[in-house]
Amino acid sequence: MTIRLPVEALARLVAQALERAGMAPAQAGPVAAGLAACERDGVRGHGLLRLPALVNSLRIGWADGQAVAAVIDERPAALTVDARRGFVQPVIAAQRERLMRMARATGAALLLTRNSHHFSALWPDIEPFAEQGFVALACVNSKKRMAAWGGGRPVTGTNAMGFAAPRPNVPPLVWDQSSSIVSQGDVLLAAQRGHAVPPGVGCDADGQPTTDPKAILEGGALLPFGGPKGASLAVMVEVLAAALTGASFAFEDASPAGTATTSLGGHFLLLVDPAAGFGARMEALCAALADAGNDRLPGDRRHAARRDSLAHGVPLDPTSHATLLQLAGDALP
Amino acid sequence: MTIRLPVEALARLVAQALERAGMAPAQAGPVAAGLAACERDGVRGHGLLRLPALVNSLRIGWADGQAVAAVIDERPAALTVDARRGFVQPVIAAQRERLMRMARATGAALLLTRNSHHFSALWPDIEPFAEQGFVALACVNSKKRMAAWGGGRPVTGTNAMGFAAPRPNVPPLVWDQSSSIVSQGDVLLAAQRGHAVPPGVGCDADGQPTTDPKAILEGGALLPFGGPKGASLAVMVEVLAAALTGASFAFEDASPAGTATTSLGGHFLLLVDPAAGFGARMEALCAALADAGNDRLPGDRRHAARRDSLAHGVPLDPTSHATLLQLAGDALP
Repeated sequence: MTIRLPVEALARLVAQALERAGMAPAQAGPVAAGLAACERDGVRGHGLLRLPALVNSLRIGWADGQAVAAVIDERPAALTVDARRGFVQPVIAAQRERLMRMARATGAALLLTRNSHHFSALWPDIEPFAEQGFVALACVNSKKRMAAWGGGRPVTGTNAMGFAAPRPNVPPLVWDQSSSIVSQGDVLLAAQRGHAVPPGVGCDADGQPTTDPKAILEGGALLPFGGPKGASLAVMVEVLAAALTGASFAFEDASPAGTATTSLGGHFLLLVDPAAGFGARMEALCAALADAGNDRLPGDRRHAARRDSLAHGVPLDPTSHATLLQLAGDALP
Repeated sequence: MTIRLPVEALARLVAQALERAGMAPAQAGPVAAGLAACERDGVRGHGLLRLPALVNSLRIGWADGQAVAAVIDERPAALTVDARRGFVQPVIAAQRERLMRMARATGAALLLTRNSHHFSALWPDIEPFAEQGFVALACVNSKKRMAAWGGGRPVTGTNAMGFAAPRPNVPPLVWDQSSSIVSQGDVLLAAQRGHAVPPGVGCDADGQPTTDPKAILEGGALLPFGGPKGASLAVMVEVLAAALTGASFAFEDASPAGTATTSLGGHFLLLVDPAAGFGARMEALCAALADAGNDRLPGDRRHAARRDSLAHGVPLDPTSHATLLQLAGDALP
């Protein structure tokens, strides 16, 4: 039977689980809020499903839950922050007001974060800025899992990009997508179930196309969406999120083998402060998209799930709920 | 027999053809330099092939060759410019030094251009900034030709994105790609030759998949690379290059029918000033890409063609050369 929890209660339980694994409350709050937002919006793959790996990363010391991030460079339109092996969400939360002031003052603001863990969706990082009137673009690199333009050997992460633009009176236009055709999680699931993956999504250790998920996971590679064009984006993400910030590249991943851990890398965030008239132009664009048959915009499904969650509580299946209570150290009711 | 012209002589002839069609020298210089750079680098589809439509757009008054662009908003990290129906390349040339000063002072600089024509590759707009040490991201919207997430009806342009990052001692890492799987030009060529196009690149007026180029051109639509993920990028380009700049969207295209014309829209350019140590990180990334089997990086083929052109002159086939001389008003030798 589905259990329904208010989103605040869910976020508190997640934070409690993270604090129990060694995370300081100042870090646990923003990380838990992101996971709870994913569950609230029905994005299960980036919600509680990720909690055990988060907890594991803290327990084994791969992520530092006590890290205090340091601003290492301050310029009128760009902040560089060292997360010191903590998570990026607390960095964004701490710099949020300052970044918006910078963007209002100069027209644009960059947050360049290095040595940061990220293990959820990108849209929770950017949607709040669009709700405040800013256009936001973010990207994050992850562990080495995907081939680039040639050769079939993994070199980049499944590097995600996210984009958010404000709309008057309705939720922002937001999308968030990885550079790979399918996620590593989908391949893991297929391997566990003994299923094949669709043709074209990965290659084996010899760079040859394969539908065998184990061959992709064991020395093979995921492939970028759209072939070389997706590879270009993934490499751009390595430059923006790692080379510019001073973070590790995907191919420098040093996470412990044989255990589920979060990705340590870098995060790039750009805010642009739009001029007057932008809102009306966004509505013209969204109306034209609807006229051309795009009845649903990215984010519409999330917002429908959100309305339901806010009205009736976030629906959790009993297994997720039990795992959450166990990690949080609470007894089952 | 191939004719070889020094790149400066080629650029002068292109400028002469543009001036003869009514373009002021201050606009013709940067536009001609871009076309000549494409020919120099072997990017024929964006070189002299584009000249007749450029000349036509000027002659019929679709583009204003006498336009004097106006800076309409100036902020420490963002300039907004109205090109007044002229081309974007002269705007970039005029603001180039100022943008680099802004990026050095604040960390980042945006150039948001509206009411601007663009009809060549994006890489000539960004590569020069990377040669001066800046990371550059640009995008441009174009005429309505491509479907977005659903519906199969055209709504966005084949909106291109380009990215350039500096490398020490070698040419920058640069890519430039449209959001469609194939270009409109490829479909036109297939229609002229009576060939089919590959499956998956377009749909007909009913939104159904087709390999008939005429069905794509007559009421159908091109399709984005990578499906919905490419559509997300194309819509982002409409937001960045049109909504943010105040330019026309692709679906507002009002170009005269039945004649080859340039695209009137907007252009987004971001410069980021990297911190010390960036160059060494770029070399680590490029070395890892090579190790993973990416023997050729985007731009390598262009740079090989460039070396040949600079050593022996830009190779032109006799037909292109004759058309150029005719448009420039020069007699054939």
